[in-house]
Amino acid sequence: MAFGEFDLIDNYFTHRWPQRDDVVLGVGDDGAVLALPQGAELVVATDTMVSGVHFDEQTPARAIAHKVAAVNLSDLAAMGAEPAWLSLALTLPEADQDWLNGFSHGLKEICDYYGCQLIGGDTTKGPLTVTVTAHGFVPAGTALRRDGAKPGDWLFVSGCIGDAGLALAVQQQRTTISDAHYRRVLERLYFPSPRVALGQNLREIASSAIDISDGLVADLKHILKASNVGARVDVDELPLSLAMTESVAADAAIDYALSSGDDYELCFTVPESRRGVFDTVLAHHPAKPICIGRITNEANTLTLLRNDEPWFSQREREGYDHFS
Amino acid sequence: MAFGEFDLIDNYFTHRWPQRDDVVLGVGDDGAVLALPQGAELVVATDTMVSGVHFDEQTPARAIAHKVAAVNLSDLAAMGAEPAWLSLALTLPEADQDWLNGFSHGLKEICDYYGCQLIGGDTTKGPLTVTVTAHGFVPAGTALRRDGAKPGDWLFVSGCIGDAGLALAVQQQRTTISDAHYRRVLERLYFPSPRVALGQNLREIASSAIDISDGLVADLKHILKASNVGARVDVDELPLSLAMTESVAADAAIDYALSSGDDYELCFTVPESRRGVFDTVLAHHPAKPICIGRITNEANTLTLLRNDEPWFSQREREGYDHFS
Repeated sequence: MAFGEFDLIDNYFTHRWPQRDDVVLGVGDDGAVLALPQGAELVVATDTMVSGVHFDEQTPARAIAHKVAAVNLSDLAAMGAEPAWLSLALTLPEADQDWLNGFSHGLKEICDYYGCQLIGGDTTKGPLTVTVTAHGFVPAGTALRRDGAKPGDWLFVSGCIGDAGLALAVQQQRTTISDAHYRRVLERLYFPSPRVALGQNLREIASSAIDISDGLVADLKHILKASNVGARVDVDELPLSLAMTESVAADAAIDYALSSGDDYELCFTVPESRRGVFDTVLAHHPAKPICIGRITNEANTLTLLRNDEPWFSQREREGYDHFS
Repeated sequence: MAFGEFDLIDNYFTHRWPQRDDVVLGVGDDGAVLALPQGAELVVATDTMVSGVHFDEQTPARAIAHKVAAVNLSDLAAMGAEPAWLSLALTLPEADQDWLNGFSHGLKEICDYYGCQLIGGDTTKGPLTVTVTAHGFVPAGTALRRDGAKPGDWLFVSGCIGDAGLALAVQQQRTTISDAHYRRVLERLYFPSPRVALGQNLREIASSAIDISDGLVADLKHILKASNVGARVDVDELPLSLAMTESVAADAAIDYALSSGDDYELCFTVPESRRGVFDTVLAHHPAKPICIGRITNEANTLTLLRNDEPWFSQREREGYDHFS
């Protein structure tokens, strides 16, 4: 725990940050001390972003900070947890003032927005790598898991998918789209919105949930494997943005929606018996999840249909496996 | 949260690990779900180790795993906390089987020894960097802090210091010592023992505590600054190992003890009014902390004495500042 050792960096992470009542002792000691709510379980998620792997040299520091926090908060959302605290491990090649300004600004913004507090961390010298550990709470026994989907459950995604993948394709010069559309999809790549409120609303409603970080197919398969079930997805139902449908052909759009990650929408299942409660909760919620299919009893089998005919993706790769 | 995505790495961190009753859901979902004890506060610490900065190419993977966990558990010890859970963020250039075997073995050993469980993390591709976030508990209101030292309090260190610094000096060919002594001090550099049991015993006894990661002078100054006090240290009293005293001259030994880090002993203060309780507790404890001086009312002033005369270190640097 090294915040406090280097005054230079200390300044960026200890002053004028949101303060939560449950933080007894925050940044500046060997560890943070945190008061715990009664009747709750703690949910902990950790994600790392590495320069040259998860973002490139052009990515603004503010976006890096936003995204590494958002990715962690998205994990909490997928568990149905209410975010509380973040720890930051920041490895930097040098203490660049502009970069640190942008980074701390981005981190403070997302902490403010979701009401969470930075409680400590470590700053070290080395190749640019950012790890965040996020802490949140669920009422005991209500965490959303990957292993609860049952045959007959309805399958949902929380919003448009594929946009971040399209932005990455443009950035890597694999395709070209209009500037206006690029701005929209780049915003989704750089500043994803974790579905924190929706996740909490799905507690005691959804039978399983995961966030889409590696692509719908890859992440849905985690639910299928953990729950020992299959799924049928109607690819015509996949929610696509205007930026997507106006930029690429229909088949390519479906491909992006199925295979590209980084959108951080939720994928979840709702039993028939909870559909009424689900619709009632959603009526008061800004997010409008889309039903894209149904869970089947064919273990580990994902069937893609278009106009009720089997559909095969042109891109056979399923998500982004760092070591494949 | 990416354990579970890559079967290759998954195997190393999900099987045959110690299981705690309070882990409702461990490795393999978007986040871990953890049951919380009543009446406790949570203590969270985070530390990163970077290849080429905190360890070199020759450092065995088992030692890297041990040390990054030990450094975090040492932070918990300095807060008086009982360790419970670890999260691991592991960035690797490649999925080398031998390395992963050694690393997971080292991590499992220290988790077993201290009764803590790996609850999740992330594996990413990139330059070798390891971040651990450790979670532990203290009875509410009893965490040891840096800011409670008062003039007149006795100043202690928990054991011999300087050995890890001596090992590093040999490794970097700045000095030579006998093979037998080198093996002993290298063990302290590679496999430090966090003072977990002692830290818990110091709750409601010590008025302040810190672990010595950057060197006694550098770390003691954090207590002095946070507590707005000074200290007088009798350098003749510094606990030195036989490996140290038989390898280097007295002045150099004192220098290592004052200025080199990585020993992970505790430095703490005990009020006169708690000395009786402290001695009683220690009578039943294997560790035998040494009194090295006393807290004074001269804010931020550290006075070093040898034979009651002012003593000045030849090495003016105070700890290891990554960005200075």
